[in-house]
Amino acid sequence: MTTDAATDGRPPLPGRRGPDGGHTPHPTGTAADVLARYLHQQATEFLRALRLHGDSGHGTGTAAEDSAEAVRLLRGAARRVAGALQVFRPLTEVPWTDQFRTELGWLTETLGREYACAARLARLRGALHRLSGASADGGPGSAPAVGAARAGALLERQLTLARTRAHSAALQALGSARFHAVADAVAVLSTDPPLDPAAHDLPAHEALPLLAEQTHRLLLEAAGTLPLSVAGLPYNAEGLSHGLAGPGAPAAEGRQDAPWHHVRLLVRLRRYAQEVLDEQHRTEVEPALTIRLLSAGQTLDRHRDAAEAASYAAAAARTPRIAPATAYALGVLHADQRHEVEAARFAFGRIWQRMAVPR
Amino acid sequence: MTTDAATDGRPPLPGRRGPDGGHTPHPTGTAADVLARYLHQQATEFLRALRLHGDSGHGTGTAAEDSAEAVRLLRGAARRVAGALQVFRPLTEVPWTDQFRTELGWLTETLGREYACAARLARLRGALHRLSGASADGGPGSAPAVGAARAGALLERQLTLARTRAHSAALQALGSARFHAVADAVAVLSTDPPLDPAAHDLPAHEALPLLAEQTHRLLLEAAGTLPLSVAGLPYNAEGLSHGLAGPGAPAAEGRQDAPWHHVRLLVRLRRYAQEVLDEQHRTEVEPALTIRLLSAGQTLDRHRDAAEAASYAAAAARTPRIAPATAYALGVLHADQRHEVEAARFAFGRIWQRMAVPR
Repeated sequence: MTTDAATDGRPPLPGRRGPDGGHTPHPTGTAADVLARYLHQQATEFLRALRLHGDSGHGTGTAAEDSAEAVRLLRGAARRVAGALQVFRPLTEVPWTDQFRTELGWLTETLGREYACAARLARLRGALHRLSGASADGGPGSAPAVGAARAGALLERQLTLARTRAHSAALQALGSARFHAVADAVAVLSTDPPLDPAAHDLPAHEALPLLAEQTHRLLLEAAGTLPLSVAGLPYNAEGLSHGLAGPGAPAAEGRQDAPWHHVRLLVRLRRYAQEVLDEQHRTEVEPALTIRLLSAGQTLDRHRDAAEAASYAAAAARTPRIAPATAYALGVLHADQRHEVEAARFAFGRIWQRMAVPR
Repeated sequence: MTTDAATDGRPPLPGRRGPDGGHTPHPTGTAADVLARYLHQQATEFLRALRLHGDSGHGTGTAAEDSAEAVRLLRGAARRVAGALQVFRPLTEVPWTDQFRTELGWLTETLGREYACAARLARLRGALHRLSGASADGGPGSAPAVGAARAGALLERQLTLARTRAHSAALQALGSARFHAVADAVAVLSTDPPLDPAAHDLPAHEALPLLAEQTHRLLLEAAGTLPLSVAGLPYNAEGLSHGLAGPGAPAAEGRQDAPWHHVRLLVRLRRYAQEVLDEQHRTEVEPALTIRLLSAGQTLDRHRDAAEAASYAAAAARTPRIAPATAYALGVLHADQRHEVEAARFAFGRIWQRMAVPR
């Protein structure tokens, strides 16, 4: 396995000036110590969230809020564990951790769907409210106002249904043998992290920054493929460029959005990698970088949210037998959210300019 | 009349550093000389365009193009005459020129409507083409593609009808006694401009820049009321902020757009005033200013065009018994054009930053 990891994932280790610049005393500890510490923390968080979720009783009102918060914490911990295992993969027991990451992915995806539906609905509701100009002097009864109200009701119905289904699926998942295996594995992670024996010999300050840097390079490469020069021109009309395209319209928008979604995941991965480095130094090593990663990530979250909201609006417009006024409102809503997509890209471009500067 | 003009429109004449900076030799000539020269040129252009229009025979093909070009020239000349008479109003025979300007306004408006319909249709057709992603891999037959095609057909039908009506109205206007009176007045203007006797005593370099400056001040004041700080933030979502508002939706958008339309007219007026100053010096006095006025005007033309196109799309969506897919496409189109409105405001803000700097 050590050999595997070395040929397979671990990069050659050329001399590198770490983030400590070589002039602060090296923190003691091996790569294994630091990783184990980070994984232990996240595993503890995961198990705590799980208990919280059990206590919440999945009810309504406060209980539902507690349950939602527990799921949020649980997903965050699961993503961080998976992220750390991915970035520092060469230091782990690779076949086991690869499979474990797949399971963590299944879990976060299954648990997240319910909240994604709720978030989409809240976003679309907010957009409809804004477009209906609550502060304007328009009253009810006109075609656009009726259309907006009907579109809102339609989206409410469809997304609530989707949310209920996702909720059932999540509850089912949490009761499944598959989930219990994941929880058991997380418990093991907490006490006996699946690390490669070599990790116990490598000084943390040599191995960890190098692998984080590798993720950073992946991020830079992926962001390098984004059409940032177009996105940097305000009102470039790219967001809506497939708005009324043929049968491939949703697919075309999806293809246009995909590289941005990919960069979003890499930004998050890079942020988790930084958390491990921070753990190594027991302090925030590069606060400016951390903040930029956070705001880049938030911008790309907004990009994803708007893109999904736009596609829900377009899908709702394909509901049979809706009134023209409803369809019109959904068209306006779709276009509005695609412009939010474009706005998020523009904002990301601004943040990225500062990020891509060599550190 | 001289007294009227002096109390009523002519400003006090404080010492002022003209655009020649006081260090180039004053061009000879009175204000009346320069104004008469400018009005003569524009009147000649007007009458030439009128002959051109008569020769074109209002037919189809090349004849129709010639006719359109003739009308364009005729409207341009009429607007310039009216503009010069407005800016330099205190130097003119006020009651006569005020009434004459009203007639010129009627003429340009009546002749312009046909071409406005054509321009709106071309803009909406272009936007639908863009949104249908002609270059994308979408084929025909899907709901959005069918919707876009049907929306295009609907707009084509409605705007072609409006255009035909406007064409008839224009032809009727050109044959009317009212029009012949205007044409006669233009001919008089060419030989015997309606200027106040005082204009014959005032040196051009004293009177003309001062009145141009007065228009400049009106422009600065009007632009000062525009929400430029919001417009200067890209993706501020103001353009569509009333997109689905109640019965007042079109009215609310209209109210939001009105101050921009007002500035558009003042930019044009200021540009014509500059043409008179150029005539005074027989050269372009302030080329940088002229260029900025031109580009500011073009941006506000785009603002007006997009606003009108958006409102046509919204109106078409209120056609009874249209298919939901058609209504959806019109909603997307409306939102797209309102974002063009927002983009034009953003662009104007950029140009204006440079314009508003004290010269």
